[in-house]
Amino acid sequence: MNAPETLPALPLSRQAERTLAEQLAAHFADRIRQRLLLAGARLPSVRECARRHALSPSTVVAAYDRLLAAGLVEARRQRGFFVRATPPEARATPHPGGDGPRPPLPVSATALIRGMFQPPGALPMPGLGTLPADWLDLPLLASALHKVSRSAAFADCSLRYGEPAGDARLRQALAHKLADFGVAATPGQIITTVGATQALDVVTRTLLRAGDAVLVDEPGWAVEYARLAALGMRVLPVPRGEDGPDLGVMQQLIEAHGPRLYVTVSVLHNPTGASLSLHRAHQLLRLAEQHDLHVVEDDTYAHLAPLHLPRLAALDGLQRSFYISGFSKILTPNWRVGYLAAPPAWVDRLVDTKLLSTLTTPSLTERALAHCLEQGLLRRHVERVTQRLDAARARAASAAESHGFAFAAPPRGLFGWIDTGCDTERLAEALLEQGWLIAPGALFHAVPRPSTLMRINFATTQDPAFWQALRHTSGHISRR
Amino acid sequence: MNAPETLPALPLSRQAERTLAEQLAAHFADRIRQRLLLAGARLPSVRECARRHALSPSTVVAAYDRLLAAGLVEARRQRGFFVRATPPEARATPHPGGDGPRPPLPVSATALIRGMFQPPGALPMPGLGTLPADWLDLPLLASALHKVSRSAAFADCSLRYGEPAGDARLRQALAHKLADFGVAATPGQIITTVGATQALDVVTRTLLRAGDAVLVDEPGWAVEYARLAALGMRVLPVPRGEDGPDLGVMQQLIEAHGPRLYVTVSVLHNPTGASLSLHRAHQLLRLAEQHDLHVVEDDTYAHLAPLHLPRLAALDGLQRSFYISGFSKILTPNWRVGYLAAPPAWVDRLVDTKLLSTLTTPSLTERALAHCLEQGLLRRHVERVTQRLDAARARAASAAESHGFAFAAPPRGLFGWIDTGCDTERLAEALLEQGWLIAPGALFHAVPRPSTLMRINFATTQDPAFWQALRHTSGHISRR
Repeated sequence: MNAPETLPALPLSRQAERTLAEQLAAHFADRIRQRLLLAGARLPSVRECARRHALSPSTVVAAYDRLLAAGLVEARRQRGFFVRATPPEARATPHPGGDGPRPPLPVSATALIRGMFQPPGALPMPGLGTLPADWLDLPLLASALHKVSRSAAFADCSLRYGEPAGDARLRQALAHKLADFGVAATPGQIITTVGATQALDVVTRTLLRAGDAVLVDEPGWAVEYARLAALGMRVLPVPRGEDGPDLGVMQQLIEAHGPRLYVTVSVLHNPTGASLSLHRAHQLLRLAEQHDLHVVEDDTYAHLAPLHLPRLAALDGLQRSFYISGFSKILTPNWRVGYLAAPPAWVDRLVDTKLLSTLTTPSLTERALAHCLEQGLLRRHVERVTQRLDAARARAASAAESHGFAFAAPPRGLFGWIDTGCDTERLAEALLEQGWLIAPGALFHAVPRPSTLMRINFATTQDPAFWQALRHTSGHISRR
Repeated sequence: MNAPETLPALPLSRQAERTLAEQLAAHFADRIRQRLLLAGARLPSVRECARRHALSPSTVVAAYDRLLAAGLVEARRQRGFFVRATPPEARATPHPGGDGPRPPLPVSATALIRGMFQPPGALPMPGLGTLPADWLDLPLLASALHKVSRSAAFADCSLRYGEPAGDARLRQALAHKLADFGVAATPGQIITTVGATQALDVVTRTLLRAGDAVLVDEPGWAVEYARLAALGMRVLPVPRGEDGPDLGVMQQLIEAHGPRLYVTVSVLHNPTGASLSLHRAHQLLRLAEQHDLHVVEDDTYAHLAPLHLPRLAALDGLQRSFYISGFSKILTPNWRVGYLAAPPAWVDRLVDTKLLSTLTTPSLTERALAHCLEQGLLRRHVERVTQRLDAARARAASAAESHGFAFAAPPRGLFGWIDTGCDTERLAEALLEQGWLIAPGALFHAVPRPSTLMRINFATTQDPAFWQALRHTSGHISRR
């Protein structure tokens, strides 16, 4: 992989406190550390880099010297500067006399995701995985938090460990909430977690062991693939269509590999926005029953979906399904409150795994969110947000179409899955230079491969400048 | 294992809303669910149980019938009532055609630990693993929290994901703090976690894979053993003496099994209270260097220890050591804030593992604790607590000795490790009937085995009634 050679100029500043060489070196160092430039990538030639950024060649040489000194790049005679491999001590521990090579961890996925937490600039992020901060309700959160911190409960929420399964008030409120879409769970079947992410982690660690096969949707969410791979699982992707997973492929994979688990986003699937049809859900659960397969239903985007959409956990009555959700996509990503609901026979073992992972979870924020549920604050907030999102989606969909981009699945929920007509990894690099962070298709494949698809967030693609930049840049890449 | 047959009467009440049979059944059901009575344990005979609790035999029969109906026990002809095995669907997923049996997960350890979060009564808990709630400073925490929730930072701490490595202000403050005992870490080497527990989990998952061998201290902390076993590691115990681990045994284990990692509590070791000597620390690091062994230094009790005690991470300069600590044992167990400091080359991979486990961690409580560090509030609180603990330790040690109990290691820090002269699992069951929760020696062995040792918390063993109960009950068990 070479660094792209025809990109807009960097926003280097001659008025800044740092020299131009320092700024240029810092720019490349950031890209290398975020693994947007991978080991072996060639930096642009000195002449090309100078031309592109309107710098003198000596400035570029000074910048490259800094990168050399920092050990981030190496010079190869007659060939130029190349990104160095990660120092050997930071690599995966080799397995002594073990059972085959370690499955490759898609580090670039976690690296790209890490990048998403550090927005490159002031522009809205079309690749954002959450609602933008200004769509959330800070006074609501502040008042719920103060309610707890001024109450007698604050002592218990601070000075003693919480219950292993999580705050009892929140679990009670969640049991009521789950009943809204037909999932019958007692508070005793509910376990709170550090975001839906820990819930997925706890279920996987409890049900599976290294070497087990697990079915996933493709496209799907890279963090899920990366976690399963890091835990040593064999990840088996099932093509995800508009109505749900391809059950023919799933049956073949079940017969060939005997997976124990299928992890899926059934409602407002990330990245396509599609939801499982009732018929497919029924067929899927019959297949699961026949083959003693457990199902993890990741309902992260639950609050943005109409209540009538069928949940697997509702059909199945939480017999062989594990339901997972949280509040990151509707109230607060930073408080990290998620939860799972499980078949009764699994609850104790899941709590044990939670204990091994984080001991307990913080009661303070769990109790504050219980208050939001009990008082109907969440419900009213959901109504406001979904109305606003409907309008934003309509505008973004119309902008996409008027700029010639088609949706691979009908626009629903928070995300659109659109075809850019060019390789979206190249597109992501080029747009990042202009300050736009996008989510390229490769992030959503279990085995990374070039893709012309990308995920957009309807809430953060309201700016016409983004659609112009997208059309211009994708056209440029297609023509090369 | 049989249920103990000579125990004090249960606190059954004839005035309660439930019948005596219901209360007795609920008592056994709780013990079974908490796995304090394991599968196969025999309940006392009807006659013996009636005698012991001053009940009519028909009441006991009614209680046992309830347990039978609930599927918790089974009747064996001529032999009595036995606790049933866990329902098959709750067992570990069997590995289809796999590589040998799953390593046994010491579930009874996690179950006992779960019990510790649900205190059996109003009595102080001699087995408590933290400072008692009334030793902590609630106004300090409230003021730090309000400082953040009323500041401009509250929006970032709620509406956006935090930095993947954790709150920058806290990491800066921690870097200063670590310098106090000679650990030189930049903020970039520090990663915040959900308590020290997640830090241990993240380091293990990053450095090891299933099947790897790992060295641990014995005695040591059961949650650590259970986590390593659940991750599929081969756990190799190294005897821990007063000066540190037995390096002769360690060398033999290294040569025989090629472990990649040694996990240790070097200062105020749990449960013995002993600290690594400077000489042993030096030898240990040389051995680690020779065999390319990494060292995880769990400094959970850091704040209760004198600053001059040597840390491995200080000697080693964080070259092959990973330093782990947190605030659960000094400020707040429930907020779940811990951290690790790592060799620079490992930081990115550790952050990736954190992302796969919980995505980010909550900034709100991290920023509030940063405030406590920056303003010197933590330091002054530590001074007050350690003075109070010194006095409590002197009193408890004197009570222990006057009741004839000897310490297996000189009393230091929060915990004493004392010899009771009887099997402490039997002792734990008998004392729990009287409302005293203790931490039996078996909790601190990698391979559970009978032990006459138990860990006491100096802060919660101030009541002379506990020492009398201990002397009475241990004498009773020894004589049987």
